[in-house]
Amino acid sequence: MEGTSKDIITISLDAMGSDDAPVTEVAGAVETVNEIRDMNIILVGDSAGIDKELKKYSYDKKKIRVHHASEVIGMHDSPTEALKKKPDSSIRVGLELHKQKEADAFISSGNTGAIMAASLLTLGRIANVTRPTIGQEFPTDTGTSILFDVGANMDCKPVYLLEFALMGVIYANHLFNVENPRIALLNVGEEKTKGNALSIEAYERFEKSGLNFIGNIEGSEVLKGEAEVIVCDGFVGNVLMKFTESVPGVLKNKFKDYTKGSIFKKLWVGMMYGTLKKVLKGFDYEEFGGVPLLGVDGISIIGHGKSTAKAVKNMILKAEKMHRLKINDIIRDRIIDIKQFYSTN
Amino acid sequence: MEGTSKDIITISLDAMGSDDAPVTEVAGAVETVNEIRDMNIILVGDSAGIDKELKKYSYDKKKIRVHHASEVIGMHDSPTEALKKKPDSSIRVGLELHKQKEADAFISSGNTGAIMAASLLTLGRIANVTRPTIGQEFPTDTGTSILFDVGANMDCKPVYLLEFALMGVIYANHLFNVENPRIALLNVGEEKTKGNALSIEAYERFEKSGLNFIGNIEGSEVLKGEAEVIVCDGFVGNVLMKFTESVPGVLKNKFKDYTKGSIFKKLWVGMMYGTLKKVLKGFDYEEFGGVPLLGVDGISIIGHGKSTAKAVKNMILKAEKMHRLKINDIIRDRIIDIKQFYSTN
Repeated sequence: MEGTSKDIITISLDAMGSDDAPVTEVAGAVETVNEIRDMNIILVGDSAGIDKELKKYSYDKKKIRVHHASEVIGMHDSPTEALKKKPDSSIRVGLELHKQKEADAFISSGNTGAIMAASLLTLGRIANVTRPTIGQEFPTDTGTSILFDVGANMDCKPVYLLEFALMGVIYANHLFNVENPRIALLNVGEEKTKGNALSIEAYERFEKSGLNFIGNIEGSEVLKGEAEVIVCDGFVGNVLMKFTESVPGVLKNKFKDYTKGSIFKKLWVGMMYGTLKKVLKGFDYEEFGGVPLLGVDGISIIGHGKSTAKAVKNMILKAEKMHRLKINDIIRDRIIDIKQFYSTN
Repeated sequence: MEGTSKDIITISLDAMGSDDAPVTEVAGAVETVNEIRDMNIILVGDSAGIDKELKKYSYDKKKIRVHHASEVIGMHDSPTEALKKKPDSSIRVGLELHKQKEADAFISSGNTGAIMAASLLTLGRIANVTRPTIGQEFPTDTGTSILFDVGANMDCKPVYLLEFALMGVIYANHLFNVENPRIALLNVGEEKTKGNALSIEAYERFEKSGLNFIGNIEGSEVLKGEAEVIVCDGFVGNVLMKFTESVPGVLKNKFKDYTKGSIFKKLWVGMMYGTLKKVLKGFDYEEFGGVPLLGVDGISIIGHGKSTAKAVKNMILKAEKMHRLKINDIIRDRIIDIKQFYSTN
């Protein structure tokens, strides 16, 4: 990459996060160091289990090391409770390695709430960022867009949405290579008077913000690629993100139902399935490799519990890009520009 | 239908609503009276235009009559302004026919906001209903579910959600023939402590309501059929409904992209397309024939601007069912039972 740092980057990888941990994480780590130069990985978690998996592979031993953490936060643990009761969790220990600059980024496919809370606690916020946010990338008719917030902030104030948008623009600008990313407010209608109290007030602020705001878009336009950055509160974003994830599975079931009791149809759909899979590839979280938590003073990427080795590799590559492009330094500089819109709320 | 009224039913049909009005509405009306017994239709709107269309068909002239209305509310008109400035709109006049008992129900594929506002204004609310609501039916893995609210109420109080659920249960019970419909709250997690201020408070009230409440479901579970009635505020519901509508079109585009530059692939996808269409049929609003506005003291069904003749016919059949099953009388009776949960909010 031109104009970016060429140093070796070190990733702190929570090896206990995914549903199939540490198998998936170890596979992803090995695949990455075998393919990518200038990349070291610290696998954090149960060292016995991790070592056992590592033995299955051949790789440059200097590039992967194991850092033991004795506890694991489960997917259904309450984040705040778990962080208190499990001080030696792989999430906490992994983030501490990043905080202490032993690693340049942290990655986990574990409990989202716990990763968010621990990231905020361990890394702190970038100065002047009110609320860190998580964004979901997805393919559109014309490229890639990212939706903020998808679950970090439930009840939002209009200024939060402005911050999400600003951080989103920086992310889309550098990670998707889009010159001047367009921002849209997710809403129930195009007109500025449409929506709930939050969206109506946010619209007015966006208009005055100097950001590249194109107005409201409706649910039906999300996938059309009219804006690279789409903002809404974390409740709406989370519902929409999870709904989208379920679509390929639902289609698969519908195809299965369709074939019931007919061998001919079964054969036919079997033949179609390869094509369908290729077409639906864009909806696949494997490709996107986790959602970035923006606004914390560090790099923290949250993967899906069902992450595969490929998804883990893509998360590592995303963290590398964010580090080398110094995304957080850019956020730190530009968040001040938007501070003038914070006065009343 | 057993146990229901056998009288002739009369539908007031806004002939000026859909994008292709009055062509679509006239076609739908003729198709309906030619197929369904005991059904009369009043076509409301520009009588010259309607008569011209009617001339194309053969049908029992006693079953369709035209009622002139000189004005049309456009899709992009502001509802409140349009209702003031256009007193002779087909929406207003059509609803007035229902109010005056010349018709048993009103149907329109026009401006949703205007239909909601005019319905409330003309028909009034059922006693003790705080907020009328619109619900979207959709197919699930196991049957049919309905989502409330999909756009009538933006910023909601917890008790509104209780009312939506109660009206939804009555609708699902009688229209889908489900014995004891299950209610779920759309949320970002399963636990009762998850969500925004609205969903957390609503959860507590639902638990105490005596309704068949199964708890929270996430976006990924909406299509799984775990609940027949799913409730959320009208902002979330509207975004989700419109997003869902866009999925078949997006898939179509993805298939098109996939075939670019390859005659073989084009042939292949062309062959697949028939199957895909059958599989996606359940996502089609034609099949569901409009969303019911529940809680107003009358029957008002709102269709999609892109309604086809078939969709119009399905809306008429839905209105007929709601009338014959006396859905509003049941709502009137049962809404009182739930009044005890209104005390504080």
